[in-house]
Amino acid sequence: MSVRVGILLSGCGVYDGSEIHEAVSILVSLDRRGAEVICIAPSIAQAEVINHLTKKPTSEKRNVLEESARIARGKIRDLKKVSVDDLDALILPGGFGAAKNLCTFAKDGAECSVQSDVAKLFKELHAAKKPIGLACISPVIAARIFGELKVNPKLTIGSDQSTADAINAMGGQHHHVGPTDAYVDEENRLVSSPCYMNDVSPWIVFQGAERLVEEVLRLAGDQSSLIRSHLATMENKF
Amino acid sequence: MSVRVGILLSGCGVYDGSEIHEAVSILVSLDRRGAEVICIAPSIAQAEVINHLTKKPTSEKRNVLEESARIARGKIRDLKKVSVDDLDALILPGGFGAAKNLCTFAKDGAECSVQSDVAKLFKELHAAKKPIGLACISPVIAARIFGELKVNPKLTIGSDQSTADAINAMGGQHHHVGPTDAYVDEENRLVSSPCYMNDVSPWIVFQGAERLVEEVLRLAGDQSSLIRSHLATMENKF
Repeated sequence: MSVRVGILLSGCGVYDGSEIHEAVSILVSLDRRGAEVICIAPSIAQAEVINHLTKKPTSEKRNVLEESARIARGKIRDLKKVSVDDLDALILPGGFGAAKNLCTFAKDGAECSVQSDVAKLFKELHAAKKPIGLACISPVIAARIFGELKVNPKLTIGSDQSTADAINAMGGQHHHVGPTDAYVDEENRLVSSPCYMNDVSPWIVFQGAERLVEEVLRLAGDQSSLIRSHLATMENKF
Repeated sequence: MSVRVGILLSGCGVYDGSEIHEAVSILVSLDRRGAEVICIAPSIAQAEVINHLTKKPTSEKRNVLEESARIARGKIRDLKKVSVDDLDALILPGGFGAAKNLCTFAKDGAECSVQSDVAKLFKELHAAKKPIGLACISPVIAARIFGELKVNPKLTIGSDQSTADAINAMGGQHHHVGPTDAYVDEENRLVSSPCYMNDVSPWIVFQGAERLVEEVLRLAGDQSSLIRSHLATMENKF
């Protein structure tokens, strides 16, 4: 049976939604390794709509689930209807959508709050020891949630000092890594990779996504082994 | 000096713009091989805006250049301002945008017309012997333009018989190829690859994009050699 990996999207476009190169690189990397991909997004209004040509906000209104469906080719599920039992792992691409729509980090920094359904799923995955992969800016969401839970989440966003400081301020522990590398918090089952937090090009991002996906699948495999071992123990009991 | 490859986008999303996985796979494949990528799109209204969740048209108006800028992370040029001299090659991802915004194939089939600036650039590239790569549905544009020029363009869209018939009806010559393969018309310097014309997954599309890009760069290299040889001949003259 394939490992079921959710990709939590936040719109479609780096300045107001999911970073598209990161999202697709993660999709390709997962599909290459035989994972079953489940695209997910919250059905909420985008915090803003940015004209990606002028980089200026517009007066348009767009819905995060509908715009994320562009990356997912229409095959996407409403976050509200996704249960922790549907997934063996979850991965978040970056893009300002992660910091504007899934949480308020872009506006509030270390004082940010996380969208309630995102927070719920993160906590449930953590409790179930299911891994979460975080690209680019999205580790700030894990810093906020798991920092509050005082479980010392170890994360990377590469080498951007102000964001690293914010991660530490929220109760996380930031680790610097190189552009195509990933940092693994084995205990909390968190994997993070900088991607476009650095000024890099698509091939670098693709390699970072590959590393992120490899580590998430390894941890998800560990988790499957745990389940199997747990089931074996149960079987021995009856 | 890097080979300069234009990527002609047609919006952002498979049902009304560029197919996103194809566009990003082409970007990654080009960047991996050291090409200089120049994202391009026409500044025209989208033929329609499709809600990618419901697959239904909406009343919204969106601009092809502005939406394409989402895939290009804002670094994109207006097609009207791009000259054949700026490029060594051009590649088009598919998606309905190619068949709705860059030409009218989605509506008019073999009777379609091509957007005037697209037609102009295609003809200039052909005259300059610069290669054009075409993913998914976009070979229909080459069939229309080069069919009219009676240069017998040889193309593939995979194995979809009705589109293959339309390509032949427009004066092209359709060749069936497998999902990750590309067909090369050496004489006209056209490379085509089916991508999502088949019901495939992101990793298959990525491999098709890699093949497409490899062949386009090979042909662009040939072309550079021709220029070098031409320049050498000139130098010998003076």
